[in-house]
Amino acid sequence: MEPLHNFDRLSLNQITTDRLNMREAVDCCVRAGVPWIALWRHKVAEAGLAASRRLVRDAGLRVSSLCRGGYFPAATAEERKARLDDNRRAVEEAAELGTDTLVLVCGPAPDRDIDYARRTVAEAIAELAPFARSHGVKLGIEPLHPMYAAERSVVNTMAQALALAEPFAPDDVGVVVDAFHVWWDPELYAQIERAKGRILGFHVSDWIVPVPDLLMGRGMMGDGVIELRRMRHAVEAAGYAGPIEVEIFNRQVWDMPGDEALSLIKDRYLKHV
Amino acid sequence: MEPLHNFDRLSLNQITTDRLNMREAVDCCVRAGVPWIALWRHKVAEAGLAASRRLVRDAGLRVSSLCRGGYFPAATAEERKARLDDNRRAVEEAAELGTDTLVLVCGPAPDRDIDYARRTVAEAIAELAPFARSHGVKLGIEPLHPMYAAERSVVNTMAQALALAEPFAPDDVGVVVDAFHVWWDPELYAQIERAKGRILGFHVSDWIVPVPDLLMGRGMMGDGVIELRRMRHAVEAAGYAGPIEVEIFNRQVWDMPGDEALSLIKDRYLKHV
Repeated sequence: MEPLHNFDRLSLNQITTDRLNMREAVDCCVRAGVPWIALWRHKVAEAGLAASRRLVRDAGLRVSSLCRGGYFPAATAEERKARLDDNRRAVEEAAELGTDTLVLVCGPAPDRDIDYARRTVAEAIAELAPFARSHGVKLGIEPLHPMYAAERSVVNTMAQALALAEPFAPDDVGVVVDAFHVWWDPELYAQIERAKGRILGFHVSDWIVPVPDLLMGRGMMGDGVIELRRMRHAVEAAGYAGPIEVEIFNRQVWDMPGDEALSLIKDRYLKHV
Repeated sequence: MEPLHNFDRLSLNQITTDRLNMREAVDCCVRAGVPWIALWRHKVAEAGLAASRRLVRDAGLRVSSLCRGGYFPAATAEERKARLDDNRRAVEEAAELGTDTLVLVCGPAPDRDIDYARRTVAEAIAELAPFARSHGVKLGIEPLHPMYAAERSVVNTMAQALALAEPFAPDDVGVVVDAFHVWWDPELYAQIERAKGRILGFHVSDWIVPVPDLLMGRGMMGDGVIELRRMRHAVEAAGYAGPIEVEIFNRQVWDMPGDEALSLIKDRYLKHV
């Protein structure tokens, strides 16, 4: 399988260099020749929305996605409404920042009733989709690894994310394929094929053995067991030619100086993705 | 949904009281009026096979299952053969101990090629099944949570376990439903229905929020988010009326005196299962 030969599609997901503020992350990308960046809302809020937009544009970077909307299920109708309002703000921010993709981490159930939480997610997406469309923003449903089902998202497989997305036009609601979350799925490649025309993002990192930590245990590409190149070829065969985000929650990576992290990422990107 | 009213189906999986040796675990079950016990091979080896059998029988206990066969994929043909041989010994031990069920934890891939490892599992089961049948032992494929895909089992969903089991007679190869491993699965209830007549075991514990540890983080029934009673009713509707094993990997439970642990288990079993 062909490796990548340049960095045209490489995107730094801001969480990978979590200790850097907006300006530092942008500067690192520029120095490294990384053309894309994925932004997180809390970091955008820290730097200011208009300032973030300016920093990124002035640097000539493009925003691959905004992380994240979602967290739809809640214990009360009032709280569910508040979360939907917050998602509308997320859509507006995405539009303002010049990205067409809002990543959805759909949220956990507020109680033991996971089926109900899943229905709530479907309803919320139906309500949010027309609003997002009117802002030129696509909703990218990201299935999260089943180990996060109780704490972060009740959407845990590609099949489930696709079933949520398919009632909508592919230009409005799609899926984000994050290798760390889906690599284990026996149906992965069949579901990637099913996702044809509906893949809105591809995130890479690696699954280290043994897993050091549930949340902070993602590895640098090449340090784990995920067949990243195979997965990239599969999403490409399913029509995805967009940016490839490197999204790594890992304290060792966080502790590296930004330029060093970017240099390692570029190396591993060519070798393993 | 109806609770359970007695302990006729309650089984102590020996790992739940890991600090106890065979005799201590058996004695605890007897004092608590727990009629079933599930044994682990390393504990049987420690106590001796014949002695274990005698201890359990003399106490009037029944063995719900032997844990565990499996770990089929390996880097070399020689090692795969050695593992298959070891599985034949596990079948013989199960027969000797008077249980009709050997639980299979199928094992991880020796490398990045998870598809190949999965094919290896299918081949090994095909080879083991006639041998097990001739010993009156059923093979219970237990899908493990996807967070164990790289370290313990490449079989990670009910659908996958059933696809592996279905080429065989339901009396020869079936599935073991462990609540901790499968609760998150959007297809869970459909797959339990599909498993009709082929469920060989039902294991309970709970998923604590937040998860304290990947391996040792299972909770006592009622301490987490799993809809245990709903799941029990579903496996019963699919024809399973056998023992219900309490299998908890948790240091706090391990640190409890055996009688105290059994007393808590009985209480939570009636309240939550």
